[in-house]
Amino acid sequence: MQSFDTLSAAFAARFDHRHFPTDPSTLYDPAHYFLGLGGKRIRPVLCLMGNELFGPIEADAWQLATAIELFHNFTLIHDDIMDRAPLRRGKPTVHDKYGSSTAILTGDVMMVVAYEYIAKIASPHIRRILHLFNQTAAEVCEGQQLDMDFEAREEVTMEEYLHMIGLKTSVLLAASLQLGSILGGAGLGNQDKIYQFGKNLGLAFQIQDDYLDCYGDADKFGKKVGGDIVANKKTFLLIKTLEVATDIQRQQIKELTTASPDEKIAGMLQLFHDCGVDAWVRELKDKYREAAVQSLEDIAVLSVRKEPLRELIDLLLQREY
Amino acid sequence: MQSFDTLSAAFAARFDHRHFPTDPSTLYDPAHYFLGLGGKRIRPVLCLMGNELFGPIEADAWQLATAIELFHNFTLIHDDIMDRAPLRRGKPTVHDKYGSSTAILTGDVMMVVAYEYIAKIASPHIRRILHLFNQTAAEVCEGQQLDMDFEAREEVTMEEYLHMIGLKTSVLLAASLQLGSILGGAGLGNQDKIYQFGKNLGLAFQIQDDYLDCYGDADKFGKKVGGDIVANKKTFLLIKTLEVATDIQRQQIKELTTASPDEKIAGMLQLFHDCGVDAWVRELKDKYREAAVQSLEDIAVLSVRKEPLRELIDLLLQREY
Repeated sequence: MQSFDTLSAAFAARFDHRHFPTDPSTLYDPAHYFLGLGGKRIRPVLCLMGNELFGPIEADAWQLATAIELFHNFTLIHDDIMDRAPLRRGKPTVHDKYGSSTAILTGDVMMVVAYEYIAKIASPHIRRILHLFNQTAAEVCEGQQLDMDFEAREEVTMEEYLHMIGLKTSVLLAASLQLGSILGGAGLGNQDKIYQFGKNLGLAFQIQDDYLDCYGDADKFGKKVGGDIVANKKTFLLIKTLEVATDIQRQQIKELTTASPDEKIAGMLQLFHDCGVDAWVRELKDKYREAAVQSLEDIAVLSVRKEPLRELIDLLLQREY
Repeated sequence: MQSFDTLSAAFAARFDHRHFPTDPSTLYDPAHYFLGLGGKRIRPVLCLMGNELFGPIEADAWQLATAIELFHNFTLIHDDIMDRAPLRRGKPTVHDKYGSSTAILTGDVMMVVAYEYIAKIASPHIRRILHLFNQTAAEVCEGQQLDMDFEAREEVTMEEYLHMIGLKTSVLLAASLQLGSILGGAGLGNQDKIYQFGKNLGLAFQIQDDYLDCYGDADKFGKKVGGDIVANKKTFLLIKTLEVATDIQRQQIKELTTASPDEKIAGMLQLFHDCGVDAWVRELKDKYREAAVQSLEDIAVLSVRKEPLRELIDLLLQREY
C-alpha cells in the first residue's frame, strides 16, 4: 500500500502531458492551459487508493483516475464562468483569458475527453463504473445549481446547506474512492462504506475550510482571514449564527452588511463567538471526522491496508487552528 | 423496414416524457422545458434506421437514440448561449428564460443524462459505441469553435468552411447511423459506408440550407429570404463568391455591408448570379447528394432494405427551388 504522496507523484507523472489534439488550437490550447495550472489531484489519487485498499492497482484505475481529474477540471472551468472568477490558482481563468464562449466549449470538450478515458476501461464492471460516474456528475451539477440558488436567498437552513455542500464537493471525493474500489474487487457492502468514508471526510474538510477562513493562520492558510465574511458568503458559521441569534443580534448582522471590511470581520467574529458558533463548528467537523474514521474501520479488509487512508484523514483534517 | 415517419412517431412516443428528476427544479425544469420545444428528432431516428438496415431494432437502440437526441439538445442549449440567440423554435432559449449560468449547467447535466442512457446499453459493443459517441461529441465541439473562429475572420476558404460544417452538423448525422448499425450487427466496411452516406447527406442538406436562405420560397421555407445576407453570415454562396469575384465585385461587396437590408439582399443576389455562384452551389449540393446515393448503394445488404434511407434522401433534399 502506498501513501497519498507516493501515489500523487505517480499520478502526476502519468497525467502531466497533453490530453488533447493540436487542432483546433483555439479549442484545445485553453483546455491544456487550464490543466497546466496544476492542483492537488486529490480525487484521482483517491481513486487509486480506493483500488489499492482491496487489491493491486489495475491498469484501468489510471484511466479512471484521469477521467475523474478531467471531469473535476471541467466543473472548475464552468464554475469559474458562473462565479465570474478572474483568477484560478493565481492565474487567469479560461473565460478571462479566452472569452466565455470558448470557456463553455473547452469545458464541454474536457468532459467528453473524460468519458473517452472511461471508454478505455477493460473491466467487465464498465457499466457500473459509467453509471456511478454519471450519477456523481449529475449531483455535482445539482450542487452548483443549489449553491447559486442559495446565494440569491436570504436564509438557508443548515440541513439545506449541508445537502448542497455534500453534492457540490463531497460526492465526487466519495465516488472517486468507490470507483477505485470497484476495480479493486470490493463487494457492495465495502463499496458503500468507502463511499461513506469519502462523503464524511469531504464534509469535515469543507466545514474546516469555512472555519479556517475565519480562524486560520493567515500565513499558513495562504489567504486573507475573513474573505467569506467580506463577500457575504453563506458558510457553516453564518448559517448557524442566523439559526441561533437573538433579534438584536440579527439586527446587528444586518447593519454590518454595509460596514467597512475590517469592521465587518471584527463584528461578525464577535457575533460568532457570542453565539458559540466557533465551538459548534469545531464540534461539527469532529462529528464528520469521527464518522469518516468509523466508516473506514468498518471496511472488511486487513487493518494494515487502511493505513494510507488513516494518514489521509490526518493530512486533510490536521490543519492547525 | 419502417419509414422515417413511422420510426419518428415511435421514437416520439418513447421520448416525450420527463428524463430528469424533480429536484432541484431550478436545474431540471429548464432541461425539461427545452426538450418540450420539440424538434424533428432526425438524429435518433437515423440511429434506429441504421440499426434496422442490418437487423431487427434492438432494445439498446432506443437507449442509444435517446442519448443522441439528449446530446444534440445539450449542444443547442450551449450554442444558443454563445450565439446570444433569444429564440429557439419561436420560444425563449434557456439562457434567455433562466439566465446564462443555469443554461450552462442545464446543458452540462443534459450531457450527463445522455451518457447515462449509454450506460444502460447491454450490447458487448458498449466500448466501441462509447468511443464513437465521444469522438463525435468532440468533433461537434470543434465545429462550433471553428464556426466562432471563422466569424471573426475576414476570409475563409471553401475547404475550411466545408470542414467546419462537416464537424458542426454532419458528423452527428453520420455517427447516429453508424451507432445504430453497430447494434444491427454491421461489419466494419458497412459501418464505414453508412457513415459516409450520413456525412454526404448532411453536407448536401447544409448546402441546400444556405441556398434556400437566398432562393427559397419564403412561405414554404418558413423564414424571410436573405436572412444570412443581412446578418453577414458566411455561407457557401458568399465564400464561393469571394473566391471568384473580380476586384470590382469585391469592392461592391464591401460597400454593400453598410447598405440597407433590402439593398443588401438585392445587391448580393445580383452578385451571386453574376459570379455564377447560384448554379455552382446547386451543383455542389448534387455532388454530395450523388455521393450519398453511391455510399448507400455500396452497402452490402439486400437493396430492398435500403428503401427507407432512399426515401429519406428525397425527404431531406427534395425541397423546392
